[in-house]
Formats: sequence, C-alpha cells, structure tokens
Amino acid sequence: MLYFEDFPAGLVIALGSRTVSEAEIIEFARQFDPQYFHTDPEAARRSIWGGLVASGWHTTCLYMRLLVDGHLREVDSIASPGVDEIRWLKPVRPGDRLEGRLTVLEATPSKSGARRGTLKQLGQLFNQNGELVMTLRAISIIGRRPA
Amino acid sequence: MLYFEDFPAGLVIALGSRTVSEAEIIEFARQFDPQYFHTDPEAARRSIWGGLVASGWHTTCLYMRLLVDGHLREVDSIASPGVDEIRWLKPVRPGDRLEGRLTVLEATPSKSGARRGTLKQLGQLFNQNGELVMTLRAISIIGRRPA
Repeated sequence: MLYFEDFPAGLVIALGSRTVSEAEIIEFARQFDPQYFHTDPEAARRSIWGGLVASGWHTTCLYMRLLVDGHLREVDSIASPGVDEIRWLKPVRPGDRLEGRLTVLEATPSKSGARRGTLKQLGQLFNQNGELVMTLRAISIIGRRPA
Repeated sequence: MLYFEDFPAGLVIALGSRTVSEAEIIEFARQFDPQYFHTDPEAARRSIWGGLVASGWHTTCLYMRLLVDGHLREVDSIASPGVDEIRWLKPVRPGDRLEGRLTVLEATPSKSGARRGTLKQLGQLFNQNGELVMTLRAISIIGRRPA
C-alpha cells in the first residue's frame, strides 16, 4: 500500500494506455451524452467534427479508469472533493489509443493533524500521435503512512 | 431550435430529475472507477462512507444526461472546451433522486465576429432531501440565431 508520503510534488506517474472503439463511444454517449456527433457516425460526418467524436465525459472517465488501474489501486485513497479544471483539447475518435500521465503538483499534509493529506494533481491524456487531448486538475485526499 | 440570444446571464433552467439504482452505481464503477466503495456494498459498509456511494464521475455523467435531455437537445450546441470546476459535496447513494438546475453566469458573443457565443454556466444537482450534492462550472459554445 502507498501513502501520502510516497507522492512528493514533482513526481510523474505513467498510468498506461487504453484504446477506445466506435461501439464504446456510442454506448457511453447513448447513456450519458446523447448528442448526435457522439452517437450517429453518419450525421457526425456532416458536422463540424467530420466524424464521430467521443463525449468529453467519456474521455474523462477513461482517464479515471487508467488512474484507478495505474495508481489508486495501490494507494490509501480516501476521497476527492472535486476537480479544479478539465480541458478537452482535441477530439477523441474511434480507434484512438489514449495514454495517461499523472504529475503531483502540490502535496499538503492535513492542517488539523488528521492522518491524511491532500494531493493536487495534473492529469494528462495523450493520443497515439503524442497529441495532448485532455488535461485535468484533480484534488485527492489520501492517508498518511501509519506510524 | 434555441440560440445564444435565448440564454442571458441570470437565466435559470430546471433540468428534470433521475433516480439512480444500486445496479447502475456498480455497473458504472466497474467500467470507469472500480474502487471498492463504488463496487462492493459489503466492503463499502465497513468504509468511512458507511455504504455504497456513486463515483463522483457517475454523478457528473448523470448531470450531463439531464443537461442533454432538459436543455441541449433543443439548442444549437457546437462544443465545450471544458469545465472550470466540479465539487462533489455530498455522497450519492442507491435510490437517490437527483434533480438538475442550470444557471447562466455569463453570456459572451464571439470576439472574432463568428456566429457563436460562449456561455459560462453553473450546474447544480440536488438530492431528494434538497441537499446540494454537486456543483459544476461549465463552458459551452453555442450558435447565434441566424440572421
């Protein structure tokens, strides 16, 4: 198990990668973001996007899955109060391979003396061409190493 | 179809409501956020949460669905560069009914003269007890009314 002390500011963690299919893009969008450029390849082709694009929320959720598999699974993760910013910089299209990276920006121990600390993190997703498709500034509360 | 001109700053839009089930919480989390307090009711009972809680991302995606059904479906929606802030304020639990509300904070026409404008919006989700469970500050680019 890893703790707050294991994540100093400046640390960079590779989160692995994941390829997203057209079927997954459509299934996600039908549930949560049924706009035609996310659900209908033919209509999307005639839009400003020139073809089907993933919902930004789908892209963000794929990052979250990489974060759990590549980081949180081995961390004493307690909660997250939220995120400070998300930017969807490039469209994500069927067949894109997304690779995640986490950078610790700030690591602040609890001021009340509780056995936890807050990490401010920059999350990044790159596609198979090395283009940055999403950034996310997240806040994460994790436990300190037991005495 | 509704356009930029239809959404002045200060406008409040009721987005309707949606009840979330235990099965939906677990299915979403297995796909995108497989932490035990989102996927395993028994283990979640012994956590600081005292029972299963929805992934914050699931809560956010449920808001997105309310936003599409209650607003975007009838709007000339073009894109979103991202969101400025999300706060998960209260846990969302199986059986909770979530009600969405959108407030237009700023409406800014394109400076380049393009036929679109940017809306800064405050999104809010309340549960069946009237408690605010999530806020989201979103940015949305929508088309201006054709001449």
